[in-house]
Amino acid sequence: MKNTFGNSFSVTIAGESHGSGITVIIDGVQPGIAINEKEISDSLALRRPTGSFSTGRIETDDFSVTSGVFENRTTGTPVCIFIKNSNVRSCDYDRNLIRPGHADYTARLRYHGFEDYRGGGHFSGRITAGICAAGAVASKILAEKGIQIVSRIKKCAGIYDTEISSTVSSEIVGILSGKSFPVLDETAGDKMKIEIEKAASSGDSVGGIAETFVFGLEGGIGEPFFDSVESVLSHAVFSVPGVKGIEFGGGFSLADMRGSEANDGLYSDVDGNVYSVTNNSGGILGGITNGMPIVFSTAIKPTPSISTPQDTVRITDGFPQNAKISVRGRHDPCIVHRAVHVINAVTAIALLDLYQSRFGYEK
Amino acid sequence: MKNTFGNSFSVTIAGESHGSGITVIIDGVQPGIAINEKEISDSLALRRPTGSFSTGRIETDDFSVTSGVFENRTTGTPVCIFIKNSNVRSCDYDRNLIRPGHADYTARLRYHGFEDYRGGGHFSGRITAGICAAGAVASKILAEKGIQIVSRIKKCAGIYDTEISSTVSSEIVGILSGKSFPVLDETAGDKMKIEIEKAASSGDSVGGIAETFVFGLEGGIGEPFFDSVESVLSHAVFSVPGVKGIEFGGGFSLADMRGSEANDGLYSDVDGNVYSVTNNSGGILGGITNGMPIVFSTAIKPTPSISTPQDTVRITDGFPQNAKISVRGRHDPCIVHRAVHVINAVTAIALLDLYQSRFGYEK
Amino acid sequence: MKNTFGNSFSVTIAGESHGSGITVIIDGVQPGIAINEKEISDSLALRRPTGSFSTGRIETDDFSVTSGVFENRTTGTPVCIFIKNSNVRSCDYDRNLIRPGHADYTARLRYHGFEDYRGGGHFSGRITAGICAAGAVASKILAEKGIQIVSRIKKCAGIYDTEISSTVSSEIVGILSGKSFPVLDETAGDKMKIEIEKAASSGDSVGGIAETFVFGLEGGIGEPFFDSVESVLSHAVFSVPGVKGIEFGGGFSLADMRGSEANDGLYSDVDGNVYSVTNNSGGILGGITNGMPIVFSTAIKPTPSISTPQDTVRITDGFPQNAKISVRGRHDPCIVHRAVHVINAVTAIALLDLYQSRFGYEK
Amino acid sequence: MKNTFGNSFSVTIAGESHGSGITVIIDGVQPGIAINEKEISDSLALRRPTGSFSTGRIETDDFSVTSGVFENRTTGTPVCIFIKNSNVRSCDYDRNLIRPGHADYTARLRYHGFEDYRGGGHFSGRITAGICAAGAVASKILAEKGIQIVSRIKKCAGIYDTEISSTVSSEIVGILSGKSFPVLDETAGDKMKIEIEKAASSGDSVGGIAETFVFGLEGGIGEPFFDSVESVLSHAVFSVPGVKGIEFGGGFSLADMRGSEANDGLYSDVDGNVYSVTNNSGGILGGITNGMPIVFSTAIKPTPSISTPQDTVRITDGFPQNAKISVRGRHDPCIVHRAVHVINAVTAIALLDLYQSRFGYEK
Repeated sequence: MKNTFGNSFSVTIAGESHGSGITVIIDGVQPGIAINEKEISDSLALRRPTGSFSTGRIETDDFSVTSGVFENRTTGTPVCIFIKNSNVRSCDYDRNLIRPGHADYTARLRYHGFEDYRGGGHFSGRITAGICAAGAVASKILAEKGIQIVSRIKKCAGIYDTEISSTVSSEIVGILSGKSFPVLDETAGDKMKIEIEKAASSGDSVGGIAETFVFGLEGGIGEPFFDSVESVLSHAVFSVPGVKGIEFGGGFSLADMRGSEANDGLYSDVDGNVYSVTNNSGGILGGITNGMPIVFSTAIKPTPSISTPQDTVRITDGFPQNAKISVRGRHDPCIVHRAVHVINAVTAIALLDLYQSRFGYEK
Repeated sequence: MKNTFGNSFSVTIAGESHGSGITVIIDGVQPGIAINEKEISDSLALRRPTGSFSTGRIETDDFSVTSGVFENRTTGTPVCIFIKNSNVRSCDYDRNLIRPGHADYTARLRYHGFEDYRGGGHFSGRITAGICAAGAVASKILAEKGIQIVSRIKKCAGIYDTEISSTVSSEIVGILSGKSFPVLDETAGDKMKIEIEKAASSGDSVGGIAETFVFGLEGGIGEPFFDSVESVLSHAVFSVPGVKGIEFGGGFSLADMRGSEANDGLYSDVDGNVYSVTNNSGGILGGITNGMPIVFSTAIKPTPSISTPQDTVRITDGFPQNAKISVRGRHDPCIVHRAVHVINAVTAIALLDLYQSRFGYEK
Repeated sequence: MKNTFGNSFSVTIAGESHGSGITVIIDGVQPGIAINEKEISDSLALRRPTGSFSTGRIETDDFSVTSGVFENRTTGTPVCIFIKNSNVRSCDYDRNLIRPGHADYTARLRYHGFEDYRGGGHFSGRITAGICAAGAVASKILAEKGIQIVSRIKKCAGIYDTEISSTVSSEIVGILSGKSFPVLDETAGDKMKIEIEKAASSGDSVGGIAETFVFGLEGGIGEPFFDSVESVLSHAVFSVPGVKGIEFGGGFSLADMRGSEANDGLYSDVDGNVYSVTNNSGGILGGITNGMPIVFSTAIKPTPSISTPQDTVRITDGFPQNAKISVRGRHDPCIVHRAVHVINAVTAIALLDLYQSRFGYEK
Repeated sequence: MKNTFGNSFSVTIAGESHGSGITVIIDGVQPGIAINEKEISDSLALRRPTGSFSTGRIETDDFSVTSGVFENRTTGTPVCIFIKNSNVRSCDYDRNLIRPGHADYTARLRYHGFEDYRGGGHFSGRITAGICAAGAVASKILAEKGIQIVSRIKKCAGIYDTEISSTVSSEIVGILSGKSFPVLDETAGDKMKIEIEKAASSGDSVGGIAETFVFGLEGGIGEPFFDSVESVLSHAVFSVPGVKGIEFGGGFSLADMRGSEANDGLYSDVDGNVYSVTNNSGGILGGITNGMPIVFSTAIKPTPSISTPQDTVRITDGFPQNAKISVRGRHDPCIVHRAVHVINAVTAIALLDLYQSRFGYEK
């Protein structure tokens, strides 16, 4: 469905980086949810560029909720949020000079040159502001059911955050929530920031790995085949610009394990609750949640906009010729710390959709 | 959509491991495609267990095309294929003893004990026979457009196949096509098989990594956000039982690169064709194909059915109690070499769906 | 979605009139529903041709439930039913001679001559056997919630059944259920049958109007715009071959009323239940049920297969030439009494889908 | 999909009558289509209340295209249009007094009182401004393919417009296009207006029948079963508030015909083009277009807002009590002449979606 995600809880986005703004329509919203503009605003703030390791473009994210909220509660009919663009500098962009690592060339193949090329147009990370707004609504509804989602930067510019157990405790929610550069070990975080700035000062950029945790989601959510939790989450997560890999639980490391090591042994407590000793499955077996925390990691590539000169093509009158490019303008030397918040948003959207598919809107 | 995948080209599956058989309905099929029963049969044969490193269950895969093909050509209306089950031994299964690493426990949470537990029921890899039949139809249609999909076992039981360039040539199609244990280096393949048998003889199992290549798909396929090629492919691939990770192009290794290394530089030949020097993007930028080969890797966990004793729970009268299990019966010590063919099938289905979404049925 | 209907409860059909059989896959089925093969068989029996006012083709409707039912209860995974074709006489059909009023010509435009032309192929009323099987499953689930659907022949061959109040009582369920030629006034029904036989003996056919009633469906089901109850029901009902019109409640007669007459006044009883004095809305306002009976009427055209000679074209080597046709073979002079059962089936499917969209699978 | 319609070409709407405005997102738009703001503005103008036979609310329909159009052409990414609300008078509405014939009561059942009740909220005809804006885009794309859609008021307040042949010529496009009160016979139109005013002056309202014609759509569009052209069109048309019936071609009158009369005989011209002598099928057979004009009629109920006193309930503290209502405020005594333009819009959206489903975006 192109720019719409979800069946029961669904999100539709529109907008371009340098157009008038970003629109998101959220449908399938339970009526009566208290929605505070501050909650949306906080979600947008986390995604916004901050500090010297982010782009110089100042996004104020002025938004208005144009429908679906009445007397500070959701009505049950579509919530629409419009986020105004500002501080755009379109002169930085050369229409015909393809930026490597960006969607410039593929957009041209898809839209025949009619696409809005300024700032990446509809391919810009800017559009994820709409996703974050929708994520704030989804997270609020999930929170009322006791479901919490947090992410951390597991690795950035080659620096790892602390290692943690696969059966991770929900205590990390308190540590990570609301942080704009979420790590468990702040010393590691500081090292990451230094590396980001180092790359930036040499006209380059870095990537990293985000790790996401979901607590409080009951077992029995998801479907055996095409709507497995992994299928639906990965579908949503690969919508986030820059993501090139995802793994659930043990992920790629499971390829090297033997079954006796990979299988999560089970045990039961006196109340009849069932747990697993390890959590290599990442909380999902047969596409369905088992009640353990959902854990997955996401690979985020380095920002493609770098001032270091690169080989590329310039397309003049439809014909490409070899050229050099040095991307100017205000760019993030790293998007990992911004992407984690977008990953939280799409995770909330995807899981709420699966939840409502089973239980409906009313619960 | 639970057991249906695809919008323009869509596949719906039904069936259980120990029921009467597997049904697949394929809709959105271009009329007039010559469909040879042998093509379907060959696709099913590749997925079937073979050799001492596979389960002892003999699947003959007797199938019948019950609709949608007339005078050996597709009619354009739904193709239905029924694959009969045979050689089932339900006595091997204990309803209340949860097998770790399987969907036994999550199925119970989802279906309240009404699920067919025999042989994993609807969660069984057996259901992928239907997916392979649909994949044969999709592959045939793609082949007529010059699009080819192959996979290899990149790694199994810790043994790597030969390393290859990210701008891989389509010559590997000839090498890998039709192989039941597809590797580029047969010596590496032999070592893998030895390791599989070793694990099997110690009552254990192994996992691995599949690598998939798509050649001949033009640029401009896919959508910027929720239907990015990565989103749609990962959605399909995580439907394959045992898959726990996916990465496109450089994937997780991109997290450690700098932008100047990760970006694929572009160049143009005299005819105005554009190529990239490297292919870290895996043929996809901004969710849209760029005309380079699509390359992605998939992590497959070790088969959970092992005879080595494991901790688990037995659920008696709805109440779980700690127990031990040693999974008996005829099981694969490795499913990597079988899963690669299912991955080819879902890749064909997903890409044809994206292709038809842009160009319709007629081309 | 072409041959799939429904989001939460969905039905996919495949098959042709003279192929090996009809397949239906039903997904989104609540687990644990007792499904009696007799219930499916009874539903199929009602649709089957009966008496001298139906086709001479004897359909035995041998079917098998090939998945999704285990120990006589639904498992929650897809139910698949295969209905074998038999007693086909393909020799009656001339490939190139277009039958007026049938889909012969439009199928050719759509499928370029690759369609299975025998007996109308995938356009045949025969395919509705699969819909009836799915309807039996949907009706069973609805019945457990106290929701009942019946239809009557309101008019056939110009003869009307008894007039009834728009606030119709559920007592008619007992009168109409299980009847193969459902009318409230058997004398009117006998007159209809005589007219059908008269038309048949003169080589002609007749049409009629079905009227459908739904009792026990609570208010609050449906959506304001694109998934209004009227939208979803009409979508489903126009899938039934031969249907050319639908009206809800007062329908076309509302066009001539004044607002003061058309509006259904409301009143409340001592328990706070709200009713309407009249039911011109047919139980639906703003696309959402109000708790009154849903009432709608469906126009069914006369069977197009008639032996009376008609003007048509014969397409030879792709070129049409004027010709005459007199349709031979075994045909229904009227399908109204068969279509009513298919309308019940699609009504059950559509309403259960809307119900589950709001409340999920579990209730 | 609640507030989203369409698969290939899709429209998502949000907004309330007395909120800040109406938003529509249009996806699946072919890139490079010249979109003139005047075309959207003209489409909105036709829907707007005009003359003494319409509501006194002055809607200026200030709108802005916030995305998807760049340098006056569609980009291929989502088009978003925001239409500002103005001239709202919320004081006219009493939250607890249910207006008969409106969605007040059903909205409460669906949204538990959290709905925006002012002016009907999301159920208001005001939301159709968004549909008309989307229809303008769809109509433009269809027009470039030579496909034209017009509607007329076939009957209003009991007065009929001229009768026309079922094989209607496309000459009527010129006569009806752009008219705010479209009839073929202006004398009949004047009589209708007099009746509307008469009803208005007696505190009442009237309904009518719209008739819609589609010219230039090739044969072969649509699907045999669940996406028959009738299914998809009726789904769309029943989204228009006030519509209670639809019939294609001969519609309900076919119920009284014999097959020999109802069947449209075929003939071929010297160039091999095939036509039908009559057009009782309304251009659709077996759910697929046959190349003849598509013709369908839609029943529109009288506006429910009338000043004549009616029986109703007042819901105080969740408990309904019998009451009387006389709807005050500025209301249309007839919406038929406004609804025809909305019907044109949804027809364009639905047919373009079916068209693109077959041929893709590129043609």
